[in-house]
Formats: sequence, C-alpha cells, structure tokens
Amino acid sequence: MKERWKSVFGMTGRKTQEKENMPVVELISVGTELLLGDIVNTNAAYLSRQCAALGLSCFYQSVVGDNAQRLRAVLAQALERSDIVILSGGLGPTADDLTKETAAALMGMPLVMDEHSLERIVHIFESRGLEMTENNKKQALVPQGALVLDNENGTAPGLIMCRDKKTVVLLPGPPGELCPMFEKSVRPYLERQGAGILYSRTVKICGMGESKVASMVQELIEGQSNPTVAPYAKIGEVHLRVTARARDKAEAAGMAAPVVEALVEKFGDRVYTTDPDVTLEEAVTGLLKENGWKLSTAESCTGGMLGARMTAVAGVSEVYKGGFITYSNKAKRKFLGVKKETLQRFGAVSQETALEMAQGAADTAKTEVAVSITGIAGPGGGTAEKPVGLVYIGCSVQKHVTVREYRFDGNRSIVRESAVSAALTLVRQCMLEWLAAQKEEAHQ
Amino acid sequence: MKERWKSVFGMTGRKTQEKENMPVVELISVGTELLLGDIVNTNAAYLSRQCAALGLSCFYQSVVGDNAQRLRAVLAQALERSDIVILSGGLGPTADDLTKETAAALMGMPLVMDEHSLERIVHIFESRGLEMTENNKKQALVPQGALVLDNENGTAPGLIMCRDKKTVVLLPGPPGELCPMFEKSVRPYLERQGAGILYSRTVKICGMGESKVASMVQELIEGQSNPTVAPYAKIGEVHLRVTARARDKAEAAGMAAPVVEALVEKFGDRVYTTDPDVTLEEAVTGLLKENGWKLSTAESCTGGMLGARMTAVAGVSEVYKGGFITYSNKAKRKFLGVKKETLQRFGAVSQETALEMAQGAADTAKTEVAVSITGIAGPGGGTAEKPVGLVYIGCSVQKHVTVREYRFDGNRSIVRESAVSAALTLVRQCMLEWLAAQKEEAHQ
Repeated sequence: MKERWKSVFGMTGRKTQEKENMPVVELISVGTELLLGDIVNTNAAYLSRQCAALGLSCFYQSVVGDNAQRLRAVLAQALERSDIVILSGGLGPTADDLTKETAAALMGMPLVMDEHSLERIVHIFESRGLEMTENNKKQALVPQGALVLDNENGTAPGLIMCRDKKTVVLLPGPPGELCPMFEKSVRPYLERQGAGILYSRTVKICGMGESKVASMVQELIEGQSNPTVAPYAKIGEVHLRVTARARDKAEAAGMAAPVVEALVEKFGDRVYTTDPDVTLEEAVTGLLKENGWKLSTAESCTGGMLGARMTAVAGVSEVYKGGFITYSNKAKRKFLGVKKETLQRFGAVSQETALEMAQGAADTAKTEVAVSITGIAGPGGGTAEKPVGLVYIGCSVQKHVTVREYRFDGNRSIVRESAVSAALTLVRQCMLEWLAAQKEEAHQ
Repeated sequence: MKERWKSVFGMTGRKTQEKENMPVVELISVGTELLLGDIVNTNAAYLSRQCAALGLSCFYQSVVGDNAQRLRAVLAQALERSDIVILSGGLGPTADDLTKETAAALMGMPLVMDEHSLERIVHIFESRGLEMTENNKKQALVPQGALVLDNENGTAPGLIMCRDKKTVVLLPGPPGELCPMFEKSVRPYLERQGAGILYSRTVKICGMGESKVASMVQELIEGQSNPTVAPYAKIGEVHLRVTARARDKAEAAGMAAPVVEALVEKFGDRVYTTDPDVTLEEAVTGLLKENGWKLSTAESCTGGMLGARMTAVAGVSEVYKGGFITYSNKAKRKFLGVKKETLQRFGAVSQETALEMAQGAADTAKTEVAVSITGIAGPGGGTAEKPVGLVYIGCSVQKHVTVREYRFDGNRSIVRESAVSAALTLVRQCMLEWLAAQKEEAHQ
C-alpha cells in the first residue's frame, strides 16, 4: 500500500511552483470592535478565501484598533514581509477612522480631494434626503496617485496604492460594501498580479476518527508539496482536502484527480462525497431519492436536531415524511408504541428501546427507512452503568433493524451533535448494506 | 423621560479607571485553515469578549499558519509588546501541529511527559474503543513547569507558561474544547492578574426589532461612559449589555443596578431576563415549571429546530413532553389530526393549519401548552400570494389558541431560525397573557 501511495504521489507530484514570482498577500483588519469581540471577523475569512482562490499565499493576518501609532507599526511590518497588504475598516467619516491617513503617510502620498468621489457622496446624501456634514467630505480625500474604487453600497471609496513594488489596498469595513467592491475591482486587479491558481477537492469521510484517518494518509501528508492533502476534523466526520497549484484550472484539476481517486479507493464506503458543497445529510437524501424511499425519525436526547439537520436540505420534502420527538417515556409509548415493559425492564436508554423506537417510527409514519436516537446527553442523568455520553441509535431499512451503542465524550451539546452525525452515518451505512445484500441475493 | 435617563446616568457615571497597571493581552490564532478562509475565526471574537469582560486591554490579534519559523517570529513579537499571549490551535496529534513545541522552545521550557494527561488520553481512547496511535502520546508532552489544564472535551490539554513576567496560554482550537477550558481554568487565572474588573449585566428583550430598541435607548447610549449600554442584535432578540468598570464586583454591580432597573421598567414584559446566562428557551422552561405545565411542539418548516432548542436546556424533561415533525401533509394529518379539507382549502401554510397543528399537538401529547410552526422557508416553494418567509405560528394555552402571521427576510436558515425565536416569544407571551387574564377574572 505504501508503494501505491508513492506512485500516485510521484505521478502527480511536482515541485511547488517557484514562489519567488508569486506575490505574498497579508491582511490587516482595523477596528476596536474586533479587539473587543463585538463582531466576528468574517471579512478576514472572506478575503483569505478569495486570495487562496487566486493562488496568492497569505502567511499573516492581523487585527489592530483605531490607533494611528499601532496601525502604522503593523502596516510597516506587513510591507516589509509581504508584497500586497489589504486593509479593511477605518474608512468612515468620524475622527477615529484613520486607516487612509495612516497608510497614505506611510506610502508618502499626500491626500488630495477627489472630485469624482465627492460628487458621489454629495449625490448619496441628496438622494437619501440627509444633510451632509463637513466630516463626510473627508471620505472623498484620496492619496495622490492612488487608484480610486467606487463604492456602490456606501460612501467610502476603496483605494489601491502602489510604490516601490509594494501594493496597499484599502477597503471599507462593512461586509456589504467590502465584498462587492472586492469582486468588482480588487479581484481583477489581483488576477493580473498572480501567477496560477489553487484548485481544491474534498474527500469527505464519515464514521472514522481523525487520528485513524490521519494515520492512514500520514505518508501522503508528510511528503506533500503539490498537490497537498490536509485533514480537517468535524464532529463525526473527517474531510481530506486535496489542493493543486497550477497555471490554470484544467491543469490543477488534472493534478488533483488521481490523488482524489486513490483516497476514494482507500476509504471505500466511508467516503460519502468528493464534492466540497455536499453535506452528509444531502448524501443521505440522495441515497433515499435514488431508491424511492421515505425516511422518518424518532429522537429522544437529540430532541429534534436530526430532523432539523435533515430539513436544512432544500427539497428534502420529497423523502422526509416527518419525525417524533419523544422526550418523555409517555411520548415514547404513545407516539411510537414502545412497550411499557421494555421501558421498565431495560430503561429509556437501551438497545431494546432504540429498536422499538425505530420500528415504531417506520410503522406509524409508514416509511421504508427510520432512524431512532436515545441516550444520556448530560450534564445530569448519568449513572455508573449508564454514563453521560451513552447513546443507542437504531435504524430500520425495509423492516430490517440495526441498533448500535455509542459512547461520546464532551458536553451536552457535543454529545447531541455527535449522536446526530452518528445517526446519519448509520442510516447511510444500513441503506448501503441492505442494497449490497439484495444485490448479492440476486446474484445467487 | 429624557430627564429620568440623565439622572439615572449621572448618578452612576464615573471616570474610567486608569489602565496603567492592567496587563495587556494579545491573541494569536494558529492554523492554515484560517489563512485559507476555510473557517471563520470565532475563537478570536470569543477570547476578545472574555478578555474585555475581565478588563484586560487587547491591542493586537494575529493569525499565522502551522509553520514553526513564522509562528516563532509572531510569538516573539507578541511577548515583546504584551504581557499575556493567548494562542489557540495547533495542539493536535499530527506532525503539522507545532504550537506547543514552538512556544516551549521560545520560553526555554523543555517538553516532558505528563503522566496525568497521558492517562486521560489513554482513557478516552479506551472508552471510545479506539486504538491509540503513537502520535496521540505527543499530546501528553508538556513544557516543564507549565500549569496543565485538563481538557474535558478532547485529548489536547491546555497549558499556562510563565517566565520573566510574561505569560503564554495555549488552548486547543476547536471551540467546543476552547470555550469550556477558558471558562473553567483560564478565566479564574486571568482574574487574579487583572486590576479592577468589568462587570456586565444583560437585559434581554424579545419580540422587538433592533432599531426600535436602539431608538428607545439612544440618549443613554450616546451619553455613556461608565456604565456603558450597548445593544446586540440576535435573531428575534435584542440584548442590551450594561457594563460597569470598578475596583471590585460589588462596586461595579452597584453602579450597573439602577441602569438595569430603568431598562426593565422601560421595556416591561418584553424583557425575559436580566441574567446573561439565561436563554429565551430557559425563560420559557421556567414559566412552564412555575405553573406546572407541560409543553409539546408541532413543526413543519423548522423540522425539529424548536424541539432541538428546547431540549438544549438541561433538565427540560420536567416540562417538555415531546413533539411532532410533520414535514409532509400526510404527517400533519396522521400525527396531529389536521383535517384533509383544511389542507386542501387553505393549504399547509395557513392560519387554519397552524391552529389545527397546535390543537392536535396539545390533544395528542396531552399538554397544557402547545406551539406549532408552518411556513415557507425557501429557497423554492414561494408564490406571489404566499412568498418565501411567510410563517404561521400557533400557540395553545389551556385550549385557548392564538395564531399569528409573520413575514421573515433572509435565506432558508435565517427564516427557520427567525421562526423558532418567534415561536418561543409567542408561547411566552401567550402564557403571560393567559395568566394575566386569569388574575383579572379572579379580581372581578
């Protein structure tokens, strides 16, 4: 197997493109509200994703407040170690907005009034029927020689300044202004600076822990250069992202393909998709649709989370009939027909109850597939025999019922989320097994 | 009213304390997935908020990838300009996790095996029935002399290292591990470092939009210095955070109290709590408990999200009996007894269906209180007459049913979350109204 990996890798591996010609980008987010944690820095995630897609490497991101001295120090350092610095925020009309002033001073470009921007701002205030104050004019001041980017969703124009092979891009902080401006003006500009693109595919694996997956692909990860393989752990899932860097998309896709194929072969049925946009619940929905089956759910400790996750899929109504939240023993009996003796003898959290819950859901809702969850999510309710984290999941496919026991670690919320992921994994696995068994029978 | 606000404010206002003796904290988030924009840096927002609440100033935040050289440079700089550096991420078992190694080397503290942590990790693997690999042991190595923080939700322990009046805190990257560890171990540690504290209370308001709330407290927000009043909008809720800075908790609490009281008086019944830790679903749970009532739910477009939110409350089993996810018309008829004619004549998304769903849930589950949701979450399924975002919510309290129509903006996920919040608000309001009416009757 080792050999196989090496050959796959050798086949597609090529030296990482010389980075000397690739500009390195760095992000600086300006705003005291970020330092106080009042807002989450979604701009940084957006800009990072955009730069990665353009094949630009980004090694550092910083957040700094509305303070001229500290902002100047951070920007000066960024210009030393990176080629392109994208700043966001601090372009507003108030006195504490000083990103533009600080950047212009550092780049040695004096601020001058830009008549075009001033006209735009005057027009915005007029059309809103608002009075324009003196400090709004400040927003029309631009560094001499800078490229001015019109803001179609606000008053502050964006700016691109170049000097001594260094580029500084200034963008307004509100995402509703930043994103459209990036897409319309900054991306085309950066595309002309970049050399090549990054292309990614994701192999999504369910029902296997991160370390197990990582140890199975360790050699591939360690020897990586281009394409690279990187694992990302989610609750109940591990995603392996294969990323190739090349001159264009077709070349990169060609480089990534054999690695993706090899991973799919290695992990077999555990791979539920290689499409980065497909979720586990969508994979389950797809499998149900293919077979013309309907699904119902019966949840105790997860209290509706599995139903909520299934119904997050648009168009799931074709396959998801409904579900039961049986949080009390009475509801388990009344809604699902779980027997009183079962609950008394084995308890609500038991293999037997999970089995009757799945059967009850399938019978009551009249569905080919049903899945049940019963467990102890904590923090209370655990005993030595039945500790917090103990969960039973039942799955009925065409009257054939499987029940499995799980022991999850973590707080109430993690136990519940883990149970939902495990239920989706189990229902997918049971459907695949039932289909495989049918196929085998037909062959005999 | 203006006068009243001013007097409340003047009474409690005092100059912000000198910050000279307060340690300065800096955050470093480690992870290539942040630089690539694969995940949003919610940890930084969380840690910033926590540090601000402790009265610690934070002037810089950085993000750096899993690269020893660059991480070392960023950490060295942070230790020069700040007193406490909190790093998150890069504590995993794989070869590219090197935060601990880099920080320990920089602090001059060699790594040694921590038997207690090793035992914990071995136990976790055993209890999960998983095989432990050699690289998992790496997580039990700790810098000699460091304070080891048990991780109750994962394998990587947290660490606090002190040397030459500088403190380095290492936390695991997954928020489900980082947040509980911060609350249990790091916050108490940092509290002892701070000089003076920030004390906050939160007035939580449901069923009123952000601009309406903001306009009602505008004067208070504008004139603020200590205590401050800041609005935070959540889906279906607005939180007003009142924060006082003082030498100790008692003094700060005394400063915040009259402002909180004034806000409660102003917003009346819309205020569901002034405890920052109490959620809307907990407030509903409390009201049910007080009256000895049971609740059931009937959900169509939210597919279990309301049940999931109710059952996120530990101990809710005392009041929440269960629910029905009736995603199809058949389920609405079969599980809840909604009439065929009602569905045919008025449609699944109608006042009449919402009413019969609430009645059906109350009757079938035999609960004093029941709430139903039916709507069009999108992206498909909307018409001119019944557009995406149209939702009907029904609530039955002691057989008395109220149905209300809502029109929510936003994508599928936002419409669904808005509907759940609105349902919790409505069920709370209907219970309060029923109780008030009973009281009035008794008086007559």
